[in-house]
Amino acid sequence: MKTYSAQFMASMLGFLLVLFIAPSSQADEGFWLFNAPPLKQLQAKYHFTPDPAWLEHIQKSSVRFGRGGSGSFVSADGLVITNHHVGADALQKLGDDQHNYVRDGFYATTPAEERRCYDSELNVLDSIEDVTGRVVAAVPSGAKPEDAVAARRIAIAEIEQESTKATGLRSDVVALFEGGSYQLYRYKQYTDVRLVFAPEQGIAFYGGDPDNFEYPRYDLDICLFRVYENGKPIHPKDFLRVNADGPSEHDLVFVSGNPTRTYRMCTVAALEEQRDTVLPTLLATLYRREVLLTAYSERSIENARRAREDLLHAQNSRKGCDGVLAGLLDSETLRRVSEEENGLKSAAAQDSRFSNIPYSYTQIQKAVSSDPGNTMKFMFYEDSHVRTSVVDAVRAKPLGFDSQLFRIARALLRATEEQQKPNEKRLPEYRDSARPALEQALFSEAPIYDDLEILTLTDSLISLVSVYGVDDPVVRDMLKGKSPHQRAYELVKSTLLKEVQFRHQLYDGGVSAVRAAADPMTGFAQAADKTARQTRETMEEQDEVANKAYAEIAKAKLGLEGAQFAPDATSTLRFSYGTVEGYDEDGKTIPAFADFTGLYQRADQHENRPPFQLPTRWINKREAMDPKTPFNFVTTADTVGGNSGSPVVNRTGDFVGIIFDGNIQSLTLDYLYSDEQARAVAVDSRAILEALKNIYEVPALVSELTGVTQTAGE
Amino acid sequence: MKTYSAQFMASMLGFLLVLFIAPSSQADEGFWLFNAPPLKQLQAKYHFTPDPAWLEHIQKSSVRFGRGGSGSFVSADGLVITNHHVGADALQKLGDDQHNYVRDGFYATTPAEERRCYDSELNVLDSIEDVTGRVVAAVPSGAKPEDAVAARRIAIAEIEQESTKATGLRSDVVALFEGGSYQLYRYKQYTDVRLVFAPEQGIAFYGGDPDNFEYPRYDLDICLFRVYENGKPIHPKDFLRVNADGPSEHDLVFVSGNPTRTYRMCTVAALEEQRDTVLPTLLATLYRREVLLTAYSERSIENARRAREDLLHAQNSRKGCDGVLAGLLDSETLRRVSEEENGLKSAAAQDSRFSNIPYSYTQIQKAVSSDPGNTMKFMFYEDSHVRTSVVDAVRAKPLGFDSQLFRIARALLRATEEQQKPNEKRLPEYRDSARPALEQALFSEAPIYDDLEILTLTDSLISLVSVYGVDDPVVRDMLKGKSPHQRAYELVKSTLLKEVQFRHQLYDGGVSAVRAAADPMTGFAQAADKTARQTRETMEEQDEVANKAYAEIAKAKLGLEGAQFAPDATSTLRFSYGTVEGYDEDGKTIPAFADFTGLYQRADQHENRPPFQLPTRWINKREAMDPKTPFNFVTTADTVGGNSGSPVVNRTGDFVGIIFDGNIQSLTLDYLYSDEQARAVAVDSRAILEALKNIYEVPALVSELTGVTQTAGE
Repeated sequence: MKTYSAQFMASMLGFLLVLFIAPSSQADEGFWLFNAPPLKQLQAKYHFTPDPAWLEHIQKSSVRFGRGGSGSFVSADGLVITNHHVGADALQKLGDDQHNYVRDGFYATTPAEERRCYDSELNVLDSIEDVTGRVVAAVPSGAKPEDAVAARRIAIAEIEQESTKATGLRSDVVALFEGGSYQLYRYKQYTDVRLVFAPEQGIAFYGGDPDNFEYPRYDLDICLFRVYENGKPIHPKDFLRVNADGPSEHDLVFVSGNPTRTYRMCTVAALEEQRDTVLPTLLATLYRREVLLTAYSERSIENARRAREDLLHAQNSRKGCDGVLAGLLDSETLRRVSEEENGLKSAAAQDSRFSNIPYSYTQIQKAVSSDPGNTMKFMFYEDSHVRTSVVDAVRAKPLGFDSQLFRIARALLRATEEQQKPNEKRLPEYRDSARPALEQALFSEAPIYDDLEILTLTDSLISLVSVYGVDDPVVRDMLKGKSPHQRAYELVKSTLLKEVQFRHQLYDGGVSAVRAAADPMTGFAQAADKTARQTRETMEEQDEVANKAYAEIAKAKLGLEGAQFAPDATSTLRFSYGTVEGYDEDGKTIPAFADFTGLYQRADQHENRPPFQLPTRWINKREAMDPKTPFNFVTTADTVGGNSGSPVVNRTGDFVGIIFDGNIQSLTLDYLYSDEQARAVAVDSRAILEALKNIYEVPALVSELTGVTQTAGE
Repeated sequence: MKTYSAQFMASMLGFLLVLFIAPSSQADEGFWLFNAPPLKQLQAKYHFTPDPAWLEHIQKSSVRFGRGGSGSFVSADGLVITNHHVGADALQKLGDDQHNYVRDGFYATTPAEERRCYDSELNVLDSIEDVTGRVVAAVPSGAKPEDAVAARRIAIAEIEQESTKATGLRSDVVALFEGGSYQLYRYKQYTDVRLVFAPEQGIAFYGGDPDNFEYPRYDLDICLFRVYENGKPIHPKDFLRVNADGPSEHDLVFVSGNPTRTYRMCTVAALEEQRDTVLPTLLATLYRREVLLTAYSERSIENARRAREDLLHAQNSRKGCDGVLAGLLDSETLRRVSEEENGLKSAAAQDSRFSNIPYSYTQIQKAVSSDPGNTMKFMFYEDSHVRTSVVDAVRAKPLGFDSQLFRIARALLRATEEQQKPNEKRLPEYRDSARPALEQALFSEAPIYDDLEILTLTDSLISLVSVYGVDDPVVRDMLKGKSPHQRAYELVKSTLLKEVQFRHQLYDGGVSAVRAAADPMTGFAQAADKTARQTRETMEEQDEVANKAYAEIAKAKLGLEGAQFAPDATSTLRFSYGTVEGYDEDGKTIPAFADFTGLYQRADQHENRPPFQLPTRWINKREAMDPKTPFNFVTTADTVGGNSGSPVVNRTGDFVGIIFDGNIQSLTLDYLYSDEQARAVAVDSRAILEALKNIYEVPALVSELTGVTQTAGE
């Protein structure tokens, strides 16, 4: 499952990177911009040249979900398809102790039954504008790191604000090529997203944790929403037609989505920081979280429902991090990266333009290895996602305080504090441009469960204490002489932040209202905040130094190797391409397609026990389906976390599948591309239609997706 | 489940301690020696005075299993009852991919069907002899710590060797009162132990991890073996008669068993070492082990069978350690201990005999906190059980190398090295007196699974690397430039140690044979061994200093407080006593007894899903049982890890139940006794007979246990 891993992967691998290297072997590597497609490569290798209209059509049919993850419009009436695991957050929040939509699925038989989701946000990329000149001009050359950060922040905030005022569109400035280029992205935003259809999680995530990141797979990992505006479904000009014939082996296919991050130019030093500090710290937390949530889930059926998404998230992240760490512990990996570094250094030594390259590497090394204590402290106090230069106000996950109420408390505390500063001097997530997203998250009516909050807050406090000791002054100040459990219990039980109305009150009342209310949870957040902000400042200064060095290295690569580049992934819309292709593993050939026959065989092998248990409907309708229908397939197209839900499109621009995972070999794609074994895994469009028609028996949906009216009994 | 926790608890809580304090409130605290019963207390509170014959009868009816855990003879034909979870190791090893005895249970309908267990060992305490004078005399006063350790080791080895030669009995010298007393224990040993009956694990461990350490409980945690000698069942003079009426509420009951360790005189400094170093390190490993084994188990039914015992062990230990750590993180705990320390210091200040007490506390503090790095290194390289002064040759679990083949390799390596030294200078686990146990473990034919070995060795190597770094010279020497997975894979695949014959060859051939064979796994063990031995020496010197100080503190307590003491638990036979008693929790009264009705209600609440799923037999026979039959009960009798399988005996010496767990509040009994909420959990004798009669329909067994012939249809 890629969305989750996206979130955690982002925390894992080093700096925001600049470029990746176009391989000499002409592998299909790269996340390309829609306004800068690799026309030469496509023409040379596939004799295909997409025209601007083709590109714009795919771009505007693609959507990004606010919480991460990709999707696409697939009907003239605003139907959007994404993965079940992307939609699961919405499914979870719509459920209660009587309705387990994640587990049991959902279908709205009439428009009135389409359920509006809590805090859903959907973005469609409208346009891109180059603003490099203005951002670069704002930073005086020779500025100290902290001054450069501040000056750039001011310029970016102004650009975003102006654009939003002028167009009414969400406007984000994105750094590409690590500051070699700044692009203003404008999005049409939708907030009324309604649930239309979801299958049972048992088939959406068939095989569960054991099959996650594996292949062959048999998952119907889809979920359908409809986008509304002013209480009516929208009718998007651009949407993808679902192709009933699917793709064929060796076909050229395109993947359009929002890959979170790639780090393909990470230096050895940066990878070592991941291997030695970031990943072990993260994994230790993920292991305990998984055990904790599993134990909690086993205590009752309702517990299992409540913790389901968090547990899947923990498992998925753990498996992903494990895979990346295993890759980094394989000395061959660092040998390859090191070899490349040395090659560049040697080449630079021959060219006076790039004599500063060894210094750039040293700068990066100093930045990432001079203070591992701060990296760890950042993870515990500020956010588990390090070196991404992005902290989400409400969704940041400091390892020391795993509690939704804590996250809300801190966001309120900081929002009111930051509000007192001029817009451009605020932390980015509290600027005016970020306000809609902040408020949506802050005032979400999604349920919060006391027991689960106490459990995760207790556990994360125990981690904090284990690392910093009970006698650490900040820890002492936060625990107030109580045990982690006692403190978590009293905080969760006594805070008023469970009431959305109370959050509004504090938010609107500002610093003085927060102070006057003296809510225990905001007090608790306050006790951690000085440390959290300090560690973040230190990290940002390190990043500034390192990023400048990365930019130099990128320039040198460009100058010395002269290859064509696409920028590293930055959670923005890109497309990649490749073919539908099997691969060899341990001497066996893994075919490109896995069909329904394979699904039923797998269930039989496991005596239909979880996580290989089929939903009842799938058992009963076995005979109604064509067993040879391709279910899942793999492609060499470059994908990483964030590509979950990306449509797979053929040459004619039709939807032929949807990405939902990568195999285990693809986990290293974050930092090294390979098409030898690494594969993205997709649900075939034929399986989607076959299941909707013959398992779920929803002809109206099939008609809407294919544009062909279904005859009864067909 | 107490056996497992025993093993891990032993690793957790500080030094071998000396004494515990007889409470002024006359609580039923203490693990008493059969030759030094608390007659006064029993008479005063319960008007009961056990005579020597009563005591000898209980003592000789009690057994200790070699791998830890307790049990008792319950028939004239050598039938022994213990817990299912104590017997599970034997059940697991007798199974294969066609027979899952752990999951499905076992019943031998004829003597010929009774299955002989792999490497089982059963000890019956025959006699105790005081050897304090001889041991103390062997250590010159004023000897340096390392010399004292050596001198004492020599004296103890001689005493044990002489006794074994003279009596043919297994002879162990045990330090009680931390060296205030040395006792020679002689055991009759049995090695032909055969499996007779086991229920399904689904009912033996009903409720699984969620219900572990909880109450009310509904577990038939029993397993029956028969002891053979010369191919025939033995006929023990002493055995317990199973009482068909069970115990009543408030009844005085006795628990006879082998509590592993208690640490009730641990100083604040020693508890802090547990809280800050030992427990967090151990828990981090347990969390990852649990996740790893769960994921492995989910991949196939056979995997689940192979990993079942290790997984339960990991879960049980994790829950136990979590509970202890939670207790230590509650500042109230350390406040109580600290208060006691200060009280003793104040009292000692008034008495010139004990002027050295503050110094003793300082000595302990120095010993346990001067080198936390060594404590951790000991856990990674030598054994996860710290400060117990006991390392098992084959069963020690260094956190860095979790592999049975590694353990065998190291034991062979060390056995041949130690063999070259005089007996008394060897590491204790390689002395002549330990040879039978060593050889039994070393030459066990129990299956070893390559895939599981590779999995756990890889994972533990990743832990090792995460802690010490890839550039650590020892780590580098062990990995040889490979990734943890590559290294683990090649070691497991290429070692010949899977062949028991090959192990014999090395063992018999000595150092030169080991060297000549150059097996990859012994080479791997060799690479770690210098570090492992060094860290152990350092730990033993620290322990020697601390133990001496503890002995001084114990003397002072005795002198100043004048209370009656029983020695701390030392994995040897003791008895405790208390009453059958419910308790209050969060304002609710938890009754002493839980009956069959409760079991079926619990299954219904959970829709009969795992781990609350009833075995088919229990569903089908629901009507055949008396629903009011008491199933489990709780008692205030003092128990800790190692008491698993202990018989619960009434005043007349009848078997009325069997201990199998403690509630969550009992986890702190390791260092603080309380009868407020802490309870031991037992299976009621009535439930055992009812289940054997009406669920399993094995009248022959019921007759043998009760001494009453069953009429058909009864």
